[in-house]
Amino acid sequence: MINGIHHINFIVHDLEAAIERFERIFGMKVTRRDALPGRGVETARFRLGQSWFVLVQPVEDGTEPARFLAEHGEGMFLLSFAVDDLERFGGIGPVRHGLDEWRVADLDPADTYGVLCQLTQDPAA
Amino acid sequence: MINGIHHINFIVHDLEAAIERFERIFGMKVTRRDALPGRGVETARFRLGQSWFVLVQPVEDGTEPARFLAEHGEGMFLLSFAVDDLERFGGIGPVRHGLDEWRVADLDPADTYGVLCQLTQDPAA
Repeated sequence: MINGIHHINFIVHDLEAAIERFERIFGMKVTRRDALPGRGVETARFRLGQSWFVLVQPVEDGTEPARFLAEHGEGMFLLSFAVDDLERFGGIGPVRHGLDEWRVADLDPADTYGVLCQLTQDPAA
Repeated sequence: MINGIHHINFIVHDLEAAIERFERIFGMKVTRRDALPGRGVETARFRLGQSWFVLVQPVEDGTEPARFLAEHGEGMFLLSFAVDDLERFGGIGPVRHGLDEWRVADLDPADTYGVLCQLTQDPAA
């Protein structure tokens, strides 16, 4: 059972420019900024109701986000669905930690038309 | 001011197969099915908290969704942000009607890294 869209990530080359762009489009200020060294990225996120809209800039070569950006360019990167209990879902990859205390697990992209999709269990939700 | 992710559309060749696939992934039944003849599509949607996850199958040639599917293949098609009042936003395309009584207007894809993004004002929200 899925409770919502937990977050959507856009990957960008230049986080500052992307923040400025989406602050203008959304008519609101960015909510939070964080580094996620384990993934080699810096992030900025907007709180949109139940969901986060996350801008992700790779800052280390050789990471999955850096490879994705090199291959696909800027834009849609990841779609994550909110769940209460990750362990109730089958067919998911290993559980890892995202921003804050989010527990995340990837779906098989072959099941989602190549779109990177994920489940997130967020203790703060 | 953006209130949430109103809907995300995935475009597919085969709506029945896509419904079956996402019912399995989400562990829930599809919420609604609708035709939208003005856009030349049939749709099926899952209610995920505040958001809709919409599967879209083009059923007429020469429409924008049919062209998108031919060019990009199946997967992510459109991301729509929920707003209270479309008229408070600048830089948007003409207002048109989506499913139900949704009033929708496109953002300029050049502003969103080529991703088709949209604002939705939903009287039911």
